[in-house]
Amino acid sequence: MEAVQRSPGYSVEREVLDEQSLEEVAQRREKSPRTPLADRLKHSLRCSGCRLRRSVLRWVPVLSWLPRYSFRDSALGDLVSGVSVGIMHLPQGMAYALLASVPPVFGLYSSFYPVLVYFIFGTSRHISIGTFAVISLMVGSVTERLAPNENFFHNDTNGTEVLDLTTRDAYRVQVAAAVTILAGIFQVVLGLVQFGFVVTYLSNPLVRGYTTGAAVNVVISQLKYIFGLHSRRHSGPLSLVYTLIDVCWLLPQTNLGTLVVSVVSLVALIAVKELNVRLTRKLPLPIPVELIMIVAGTLVSSLASLQPQYGVEVVGEIPSGLQPPRAPDVSLFREVIGDASALAIVGYAISISLGKTFALKHGYKVDSSQELVALGLSNTVGGFFQCYSVSSSMSRSLIQESTGGKTQMASAVSAVIVLVTVLKLGSLFQSLPKAVLSAIVFVNLKGMFMQFLDICTLWRSSKIDLLVWVVTFVSTLLLNLDLGLAASIGFALLTVIFRTQLPRYYVLGQIPGTELYLDVETYAEAREILGITIFRSSATVYFANAELYLEALKKKSGIDISKLLTYKRKQAAKQQRREQREQRRARRHAKRAVRRLSLGSLGKWSWDIHSIILDLSTCNFLDTVAINTLKSIFTDFGEIDVGVYIAGCQACVVEQLECGDFFIPSLTKRHLFPSVHDAVLHCLQLHGTPTAPGYDCVLDMDCSTKL
Amino acid sequence: MEAVQRSPGYSVEREVLDEQSLEEVAQRREKSPRTPLADRLKHSLRCSGCRLRRSVLRWVPVLSWLPRYSFRDSALGDLVSGVSVGIMHLPQGMAYALLASVPPVFGLYSSFYPVLVYFIFGTSRHISIGTFAVISLMVGSVTERLAPNENFFHNDTNGTEVLDLTTRDAYRVQVAAAVTILAGIFQVVLGLVQFGFVVTYLSNPLVRGYTTGAAVNVVISQLKYIFGLHSRRHSGPLSLVYTLIDVCWLLPQTNLGTLVVSVVSLVALIAVKELNVRLTRKLPLPIPVELIMIVAGTLVSSLASLQPQYGVEVVGEIPSGLQPPRAPDVSLFREVIGDASALAIVGYAISISLGKTFALKHGYKVDSSQELVALGLSNTVGGFFQCYSVSSSMSRSLIQESTGGKTQMASAVSAVIVLVTVLKLGSLFQSLPKAVLSAIVFVNLKGMFMQFLDICTLWRSSKIDLLVWVVTFVSTLLLNLDLGLAASIGFALLTVIFRTQLPRYYVLGQIPGTELYLDVETYAEAREILGITIFRSSATVYFANAELYLEALKKKSGIDISKLLTYKRKQAAKQQRREQREQRRARRHAKRAVRRLSLGSLGKWSWDIHSIILDLSTCNFLDTVAINTLKSIFTDFGEIDVGVYIAGCQACVVEQLECGDFFIPSLTKRHLFPSVHDAVLHCLQLHGTPTAPGYDCVLDMDCSTKL
Repeated sequence: MEAVQRSPGYSVEREVLDEQSLEEVAQRREKSPRTPLADRLKHSLRCSGCRLRRSVLRWVPVLSWLPRYSFRDSALGDLVSGVSVGIMHLPQGMAYALLASVPPVFGLYSSFYPVLVYFIFGTSRHISIGTFAVISLMVGSVTERLAPNENFFHNDTNGTEVLDLTTRDAYRVQVAAAVTILAGIFQVVLGLVQFGFVVTYLSNPLVRGYTTGAAVNVVISQLKYIFGLHSRRHSGPLSLVYTLIDVCWLLPQTNLGTLVVSVVSLVALIAVKELNVRLTRKLPLPIPVELIMIVAGTLVSSLASLQPQYGVEVVGEIPSGLQPPRAPDVSLFREVIGDASALAIVGYAISISLGKTFALKHGYKVDSSQELVALGLSNTVGGFFQCYSVSSSMSRSLIQESTGGKTQMASAVSAVIVLVTVLKLGSLFQSLPKAVLSAIVFVNLKGMFMQFLDICTLWRSSKIDLLVWVVTFVSTLLLNLDLGLAASIGFALLTVIFRTQLPRYYVLGQIPGTELYLDVETYAEAREILGITIFRSSATVYFANAELYLEALKKKSGIDISKLLTYKRKQAAKQQRREQREQRRARRHAKRAVRRLSLGSLGKWSWDIHSIILDLSTCNFLDTVAINTLKSIFTDFGEIDVGVYIAGCQACVVEQLECGDFFIPSLTKRHLFPSVHDAVLHCLQLHGTPTAPGYDCVLDMDCSTKL
Repeated sequence: MEAVQRSPGYSVEREVLDEQSLEEVAQRREKSPRTPLADRLKHSLRCSGCRLRRSVLRWVPVLSWLPRYSFRDSALGDLVSGVSVGIMHLPQGMAYALLASVPPVFGLYSSFYPVLVYFIFGTSRHISIGTFAVISLMVGSVTERLAPNENFFHNDTNGTEVLDLTTRDAYRVQVAAAVTILAGIFQVVLGLVQFGFVVTYLSNPLVRGYTTGAAVNVVISQLKYIFGLHSRRHSGPLSLVYTLIDVCWLLPQTNLGTLVVSVVSLVALIAVKELNVRLTRKLPLPIPVELIMIVAGTLVSSLASLQPQYGVEVVGEIPSGLQPPRAPDVSLFREVIGDASALAIVGYAISISLGKTFALKHGYKVDSSQELVALGLSNTVGGFFQCYSVSSSMSRSLIQESTGGKTQMASAVSAVIVLVTVLKLGSLFQSLPKAVLSAIVFVNLKGMFMQFLDICTLWRSSKIDLLVWVVTFVSTLLLNLDLGLAASIGFALLTVIFRTQLPRYYVLGQIPGTELYLDVETYAEAREILGITIFRSSATVYFANAELYLEALKKKSGIDISKLLTYKRKQAAKQQRREQREQRRARRHAKRAVRRLSLGSLGKWSWDIHSIILDLSTCNFLDTVAINTLKSIFTDFGEIDVGVYIAGCQACVVEQLECGDFFIPSLTKRHLFPSVHDAVLHCLQLHGTPTAPGYDCVLDMDCSTKL
């Protein structure tokens, strides 16, 4: 242990090690044989009371935390937080139902049943499950696609065409429930097979680009309520563009009353929200401006008879009470399978990212797989009660946490508030203008629009991540929310290829007096070792860049391998001729040819280099293409008498070399070195410092003796 | 330079360096500002006689090599080789025309015009451009899809349905020409924008799996000729399965005469080819068995009147002479765009891989982009003369090289032989049975079927590459040749994600007496440094595995960060309470709580570790997700007073850290070290060797002093 000591300096004195001696010194272990399958199976099937209890507690977390619930510590916080969140659930539930194109009461249902299911199965203590803008919009695109207005016109007694709203809405609710249940089933299955990791494909720039794109989608789909227009909703790729064109076209038909309501609501909401932020320290609870807005809107609307007199569209009849559960229309599953998988993934991604943030902040763990199962069950059970798809909402979860909520008990309290509203108060909101709900949706999107600032941040930090953001945003706008998501994930994965396909190639030089070898272009003090080219790629060598690696090596080492090979072969042929003819004159002629070739066409470096060291420390893995490339480097350079050595392979790369039949009797682990410095020392030991003309002689001599 | 010396040992003595001092010592250069765009543009547009001449020579390589053509050195070899290849062109051209579903003479055209164009623009000296089995089959799938037999039945004078062969074949030729021209245009465009690198996506296992799949496709499509059946050809996904079912179904209708011809031809071809291989040293040229077979087949067929008497299908009328050029049917382009792009890529991939092999062997260079242009022009010009798509054929190119061909002059000679046949001798082959041509196709596929042995090789060397091979093979069989190719490329790219998404995570330990740190699980002698966890991922940390990295770090270091954070926060809260109350009793109570927590719930290691060193030497790049993960590691571990250090970043990773705003006043380049050993020495200097209870005190004390 002389190397590690409490001296201020770095001091190492040891033998030069190659891979083979290193394995002896460090005692590399043979891979331990795997436990036989039968044993592993037996082990995993073994059942005991303790195991069973653990599994039950894992799958139904409420059993573990509820018995230990401390009333003294948590009850007050949970009550206050639950009431605050419940008050937010009401306006948000009704407003987001507009996005999902179902009657407002179903938004309230979605704020009730799934919350209770998550209370039982969820592992996060702070997130507020329920309606969420992006998810609601995704549901809306399905309901409007499968149940467009056009399908529900019928002729009334006068022979004029009338839209049958009741049938339409009933069918839409059925579609929403079907897609919700299917998404829930997907989530449960993914959770059971522990595939929570799929969400890692949704990188941060992708999710932010996606939600920003979704926010723009939401705004455009809500414009008709803000202006009081009757445009039809489009679906499929480019639907956003068509909708925008429709709205512009219809703008002259704006309903002034609706516009006034919208503008007043927007201004009031923004102003009070701003106030909330400013006074955040002085207020015990934020002002429930959305609820106030809804109450005020309803009062003004009914007192001033906004609908009959000014044609302001209102929410309409809200049935009181709950509805019995209903089996979904299974025949719809086939048509919504794409949307359901997008819903499942996006819903989970949003929920888990929020859950993890809070978990880290408060020092507990959320179980990714259990979260998937919990969210899936919330959706599935909710779907049976005509809820539409849920996720956790950022705005509500923040309130839940900041007002002192400590457990999911807060959610349970909020569910009670929603229940009371559904049972008793819902019918009071009949004359609430839809424009107020749209304004609430708008204001809640503020956070997502703030994400446009990402563009500046990413421009400075990473152009490729910016590209992912922009591509996701644009494809979410141009394709719809599900196709856009698929395209974005595909693109994000491709960026990994981009990043590694065109790596930088370095020639390394020694920092004098150290064992460090750095890029000679970046570091002025890095000195190339005479006669040795040390070469590194910034990325793993694999099929997409193996050829470039070879090209770059030739270029950087200055050795034109093909010319040298031709030269050598010509030499060999001439030598043969010489021997055959055994004439003095012919031999002299050949010699002259040699001199011309070696001085004329060969590169400046070609006779200076006796060794090439490939620093593979950046290699993550080696595929067969890369191994073959390395092999051909060894043979080609070997043929012109340049020694090739590999340095800095990690253990798993060495394993891959072994599996790939890389090592042959003439190419052993003696050509591998744990560090570049070992390899350099080995080369210098072997060759000494070469002189330029000397090498030419060696090459010449070598050819003659070999052939 | 004391480190590099010709001593047998590795000896280094220097200061411990962190990134900041390294940059001073090694004099890191500032990035040089880029040349302004205007200047670069001016530079690239500058025109001079010399540049013009160079460009012309680059784009029309024949101008550079033909004037220097040495009759003495090359003429004889080229002549012999050209004649041999020409003799192979005839049977292959006619046989592969069957695959492309066009009359045999168009196969001969394809062995003529494109060869001449390549002679002018090509840079490879040894490849033989012309018909090729896989490409022909791909063309065939297009012609049969757009011009199936069903479209060309008409009622003759007797009212029975008759297949109008002339119209059908004329239309098929037009389709083939259209797809060929489009593929050619794609290739030229790709070549002009220097996009030759797309072919690197076609890794070796992919190309071999693909060609093997294509060979199976070819065999199944040729079965009907071997058995003399009249099955219709299917196209689109699963067409192979349908064709096979058809053939099995029709097997009782086998034409015995055809079957006999097939079997005899197959046996003769295989026998003589085997003989060729055995006698390869004794024969000056291989026996042109395919040509002999065609001549013999034609003679036997016409003498024994095989067609009229036994119903053996024959080639039929072969028009003499060449046809005038004809503009393609542009309206077809839209329908063949997918096939054309697949043709462009596959054709180029096969051609360039052969070209590079010969170039390396004979020591010259092929220019990837120029090859694309040359092949594209061959296709485009050929298409105007009703040729179908070409590539270089492995079998012919090998003959061209092995019989002494030295330049593309050999190809020119072969083209003359084809020309003579087309002009004068073609009509003689009218009674040649198609079964003989099918037998020739079969026998030429031997090499591709040998590729099945890859499965064994890849099983040993790389399971993932085997997976690529198998997925490509299966998708080529089940989807058609173009969709299958797209799916395979997508899958091959995904494997890069698979390989890096679930990396191995290592804890590193020191090999005593050295500065080497190796994985403690693999190397028995690797010793962990007390108080320091050195952690490495085998792959780059990026969005798809950043979370796993964090999880693995927590697990391997044994530090349950969330519990420790809770613990610390509780401590802080209690401390606050203590201070507020200032009561003796309360303080004692708190102390007891500390003891219980620290000994009970915290992991075994948690108070042993004062430093974590992240070895990032395997990182190829850092995206924003990875940088954020690193940042959170620094903050979280920092909060529980564990120091985090990074070691072994390459220069470009350091740059990405800089761009990503990683460095803040409390986290500078002093936390980065060029090697793990530097980082370890720094930590030991800072902390000394810690003792278990001591650390607990430090943590406790630290909390109290801070808060």
